[in-house]
Amino acid sequence: MNLLLLEEADFIAADRVVLRDRRLVHMQDVHRVAVGDNLRVGRIGGLMGNAQLLRLDAREAELQVSFELPPPAKLPLTLLLALPRPKMLRRVLQTVAAMGVPKVVLLNSYRVEKSFWQTPFLEPAALREQLILGLEQARDTVLPEIIIEKRFKPFVEDRLPAMTQGTLGLIGHPGDYPPCPRALDEPVTLAIGPEGGWIPYEVDLLAKAGLQPVQLGARILRVETAVTALLARLF
Amino acid sequence: MNLLLLEEADFIAADRVVLRDRRLVHMQDVHRVAVGDNLRVGRIGGLMGNAQLLRLDAREAELQVSFELPPPAKLPLTLLLALPRPKMLRRVLQTVAAMGVPKVVLLNSYRVEKSFWQTPFLEPAALREQLILGLEQARDTVLPEIIIEKRFKPFVEDRLPAMTQGTLGLIGHPGDYPPCPRALDEPVTLAIGPEGGWIPYEVDLLAKAGLQPVQLGARILRVETAVTALLARLF
Repeated sequence: MNLLLLEEADFIAADRVVLRDRRLVHMQDVHRVAVGDNLRVGRIGGLMGNAQLLRLDAREAELQVSFELPPPAKLPLTLLLALPRPKMLRRVLQTVAAMGVPKVVLLNSYRVEKSFWQTPFLEPAALREQLILGLEQARDTVLPEIIIEKRFKPFVEDRLPAMTQGTLGLIGHPGDYPPCPRALDEPVTLAIGPEGGWIPYEVDLLAKAGLQPVQLGARILRVETAVTALLARLF
Repeated sequence: MNLLLLEEADFIAADRVVLRDRRLVHMQDVHRVAVGDNLRVGRIGGLMGNAQLLRLDAREAELQVSFELPPPAKLPLTLLLALPRPKMLRRVLQTVAAMGVPKVVLLNSYRVEKSFWQTPFLEPAALREQLILGLEQARDTVLPEIIIEKRFKPFVEDRLPAMTQGTLGLIGHPGDYPPCPRALDEPVTLAIGPEGGWIPYEVDLLAKAGLQPVQLGARILRVETAVTALLARLF
């Protein structure tokens, strides 16, 4: 946790917060804070700034806070991601939040196991928890938007074309395709498939919606690694 | 597992192998293979090729194998990595093997907790297990070399200068430094710090050994994410 993220409910005054949950435990056990210490804080969806620890006991911490810095810029990106298996989903959500992706569509694919859609990690509160961990890691305050699309074809045919308009549409896909471009400034819509990849029918439909396959070389990467590698290369 | 990696002990003839361990379970449970199916195989440290499943029962699988393809090229890179916490270490080892890093130095740092050095995951067999998982994922056969350096100063002062000679020496380090370069062809020595980063004394010693700090932006990434992002950007 490189940034202590504050919720509206934490505030007892405009410049005072009281914390009682895992953030209190983390401050004590990992940061080993003492009264008078300064910490970096951020207001969810708002500015970042500093806090001074006023009071600390086993039950709660009180901090005086001030906010002056904007959070870092997001990437100009919409990420379409075939729903990963639950364990991977949690890590990928942290990663995309940490790397500054503003919008993620979790999408079905032929190779997404049906059981993946049953995971409790897709509940709004569980999604939010992982995103917050990513924001705390990277020092950002703005939650990415997560859109869940359980049906591939209607999404790709009916809603994706409008989403990709005015963006460079790319599919990260192993094979005999052009290399993934580097250091772009323009907005991008990027689709990353499941373990095993999109099937040819899916690549065709994505292409009709304006996305072209690009590759990162012969090595097949896990979804989480592919997400990070593609983003680091694109921007 | 995108490549079935074969050990010398698996061979019962020049073109025949018998498998009994987790690879048998994986072939049955994940790939759901049947007699006659073809699989991609690789010989550890050698060529890649194809296998045909000749015989399969609950206890073992027999395959006919042939080898004709060289494994993909490695990156021209030596990676110095402050020893991550055990859980992260396992994933990072898989990631570096998958991405084609040929040589990794696991290094001490002021911010590496002493207990991390006690983990059983540093045993040679445990390191090898994680590296194999990475090679199987990416389709490579050549194990990276892992060097363990429990003492920072003697390594950086006495052995690192010879290691960095003829390479571009870089430290991935958040702060007011030049941006990490892109799309290099030349050999690189890259140092990545622990959670919390190298301390200034360590950055100074690394700089004296020929490594200069570069940054990836304001966002602070987890070690595993930073490794992937830096490699994807450098090469």
